[in-house]
Amino acid sequence: MDADTLRGRPIRLTAFDWVPRFAQGHVRDLRLRWALEETGLPYEVDLVAQGSQRQAENLARQPFGQVPALTIGADTLFETGACVWRIAAASDALLPQAPGDRDDCLAWVFAATDTVEKPIAMLAMLRFFTTDKAAAAGIEPDIQALLHERLGRLSDALGDAPHLVADRFTVADLMMTSVLRDAEAEDLDPFPQLAAYVARHEGRPAFQRALASQLETFERHADRYRRPKP
Amino acid sequence: MDADTLRGRPIRLTAFDWVPRFAQGHVRDLRLRWALEETGLPYEVDLVAQGSQRQAENLARQPFGQVPALTIGADTLFETGACVWRIAAASDALLPQAPGDRDDCLAWVFAATDTVEKPIAMLAMLRFFTTDKAAAAGIEPDIQALLHERLGRLSDALGDAPHLVADRFTVADLMMTSVLRDAEAEDLDPFPQLAAYVARHEGRPAFQRALASQLETFERHADRYRRPKP
Repeated sequence: MDADTLRGRPIRLTAFDWVPRFAQGHVRDLRLRWALEETGLPYEVDLVAQGSQRQAENLARQPFGQVPALTIGADTLFETGACVWRIAAASDALLPQAPGDRDDCLAWVFAATDTVEKPIAMLAMLRFFTTDKAAAAGIEPDIQALLHERLGRLSDALGDAPHLVADRFTVADLMMTSVLRDAEAEDLDPFPQLAAYVARHEGRPAFQRALASQLETFERHADRYRRPKP
Repeated sequence: MDADTLRGRPIRLTAFDWVPRFAQGHVRDLRLRWALEETGLPYEVDLVAQGSQRQAENLARQPFGQVPALTIGADTLFETGACVWRIAAASDALLPQAPGDRDDCLAWVFAATDTVEKPIAMLAMLRFFTTDKAAAAGIEPDIQALLHERLGRLSDALGDAPHLVADRFTVADLMMTSVLRDAEAEDLDPFPQLAAYVARHEGRPAFQRALASQLETFERHADRYRRPKP
């Protein structure tokens, strides 16, 4: 985890060539692209054809058949949180030097992917992936209450500050913004400070480059996945 | 994150004085207790009275009003994943020295708390915390299918190996075992290698000491929370 262990080593990440519209701009390679854009380190993208993610080639680098995976030289890393932390640990752009600040960043990275993202992922599951929509609608209020309770705590912890740690943009803000982006707008509406926090970080040039890059890939491959109307 | 930054600094963690029966042996301070027992580092436990977790004293160290928090000297850390990683990074007992192995451990720690735990947490939510039980029953098969798909991938990745990383017990096994313990037995039954993996690591003396310590605390305070029969 030394600060210089990425320099001079080729960096590659995996991403889908295409996903359905509702997932565009939300696939998790975006988080790695954003982190790398913030560091200024060059990287290449290896595309995984939609539908082939559970074939041997991808399972060898990502045991759950997901994207992204991160390759640094000959080493392959998976799980978005681990990949983003690994990138952050190699750059002052995302992680302060003081040990206490680094600990705080790690805590908020886990808070994002664990405490905050769990109810967001549950709501996405109910809305997009369940077959019994009436049952899903019956469960939604409970999950939404849990999410709102946690967002309220997060909003209190953030207060009027623009950042979570050390009065500057860090990997903590990158991950928390990424997770909050996957909530529905209606779930952020009661928390104007969080909505502003997300909008402000989405405005960063590194995020905009990362997003444009992911969307451009989907656009370029869309024809391959277009189905003739029945 | 130096290996010696815990030695000689007082270590404290927070834990509930009591929880309802279904949660006993599963509250997350157990993960920190286990990690600390594996390292042999001495630690103290600060009890949080059940019902007081969202009062100012606890919110100051855990912004979401949860347990546990970890205090090392004057520094406070929260989120189980971050706390366990911080403890692991300070001890050869839980983390190999080779950078590649450390990266693999970090990946599996996030795989445990993110990819594997999300469907387990959803099922727990459906079973214990939803008000519309009929709706919960309608959703459960979809979530169970997602969990089983992920457990199948995990079982494939583990294969016949006793450990996830570097042919030895690491923080990756500690976190994965902790997460899998929160699944229902019926969900692990189709994956005998995972059930054996959990049972084997639950047999470690350090785990048994951690579990006994959590349960003893609940037993000691049970009278305080006993309600007279109506």
